[in-house]
Amino acid sequence: MIACSQKLEVIAIPGIPLIRPGDDLASSIAAALSRADLRLRDADVLVVTSKVVSRAEGRFVDLSRIGPSERAVALASEVGKDARLVELILRESTYLSRKTQGALIVRHRLGFISANAGIDASNAQPVLPASGSGPWALLLPEAPDRSAANIRHALESTSGASIGVVISDSFGRPFRLGTVGAAIGCAGLPPLWDRRGERDLYGRALENTITALADQVAACADLVAGQADERRAVVLVRGLRFSPSDLPARILYRRPDEDVYA
Amino acid sequence: MIACSQKLEVIAIPGIPLIRPGDDLASSIAAALSRADLRLRDADVLVVTSKVVSRAEGRFVDLSRIGPSERAVALASEVGKDARLVELILRESTYLSRKTQGALIVRHRLGFISANAGIDASNAQPVLPASGSGPWALLLPEAPDRSAANIRHALESTSGASIGVVISDSFGRPFRLGTVGAAIGCAGLPPLWDRRGERDLYGRALENTITALADQVAACADLVAGQADERRAVVLVRGLRFSPSDLPARILYRRPDEDVYA
Repeated sequence: MIACSQKLEVIAIPGIPLIRPGDDLASSIAAALSRADLRLRDADVLVVTSKVVSRAEGRFVDLSRIGPSERAVALASEVGKDARLVELILRESTYLSRKTQGALIVRHRLGFISANAGIDASNAQPVLPASGSGPWALLLPEAPDRSAANIRHALESTSGASIGVVISDSFGRPFRLGTVGAAIGCAGLPPLWDRRGERDLYGRALENTITALADQVAACADLVAGQADERRAVVLVRGLRFSPSDLPARILYRRPDEDVYA
Repeated sequence: MIACSQKLEVIAIPGIPLIRPGDDLASSIAAALSRADLRLRDADVLVVTSKVVSRAEGRFVDLSRIGPSERAVALASEVGKDARLVELILRESTYLSRKTQGALIVRHRLGFISANAGIDASNAQPVLPASGSGPWALLLPEAPDRSAANIRHALESTSGASIGVVISDSFGRPFRLGTVGAAIGCAGLPPLWDRRGERDLYGRALENTITALADQVAACADLVAGQADERRAVVLVRGLRFSPSDLPARILYRRPDEDVYA
């Protein structure tokens, strides 16, 4: 059961520290919640940017150690990117969908379509000590649905509340400019909200009413999450109503044979 | 100037009446705000579902009076839709992008890509009196950027606050399942939030940081707006920080020659 809420609060958790490889993210979040005097309640959802999950997982790659393939060199020259970065993008993806100046749009090994396989080169400095010269790139988390489940279970066991966790990333889109937050990992919160059973005011069934709940929660959180400031990487969304779910974010991704734009 | 907020409140305005053709939507919203003891503040954003804007504008079409063209009849049979509805979709659009069972994906005359030109047949009953037998379809608002500007200016003049207004609709998407709220009209709020000037914690410029602010606000509001219940068609998003903008939602729509998926 999911039901419309009358009011939501969307709160950037203050005091999230800079996350280093090996850090226990769930503990850092629990400590920040406690310092902010925020107690988790049933149906609270924590939205965590993928970047800090990746940092905790140590998903840094030293580009100086990457030897690009011939294909990567050719593509890099074609779209105007660093060949070593292109090599990483190809390694992280299963299919090249489109190429355009500055971007390779690929099907990520995790199943979603994204520009440059979600690899971040803007803020990828590992906190010292790091062995390597860089420049550094930061890959998406290894298995963000699992990361979400781990954070969920750790925080549920310390708080006693039944919560949702979304791992979010910023996505560009066909047709529309600007990025939006979307879910690449999910636990506890149903990724899709099937409202087809609802009736309108005249008793007719609604059309087109499977809502991308986890994506909308991620978009909502992106309004307060600091992209530049990792200390605002965790956002609490309070006021939703849902029954606990074990469905992963990957149920959000269209199969290629179901996608007229694949 | 736009800056990240620490906390947002997202509130479905209670007591919005069922909107009829000819109703003054801004007055209805102002009255509901007043009854709920909510006073508009600077940088409040009101998200209004397109459906109630269309209802106020009387955008109902009696399908029994539509004579479908040969092309509409052929397409309708191909995708399994009512030929009269297909005729309306074609009239409301400038370009057929894709067709699939149950849906024609078109470039709407307003400039965005949408399934079935955003025409709603599920909840399109005009409140009586209506001359015609139906079934009825409800077109999107005539000019939603203008509708947003009208609501903005009416509510600014009664409240004295400088606000934003977003007209939202639910969109399906390539690549990902489920619908999300997005902006088809905007006034006061900058549709895009250009964060490229921001620096990360290491002083490097951020990549990919033009955020679709109006779309994310619409997605956020969709979490509390009742799709089935038009009495929850207006949502207040409070806590954003932005300087007033006169840019319309249409700046969000990619030009076909800028879109690798067009």
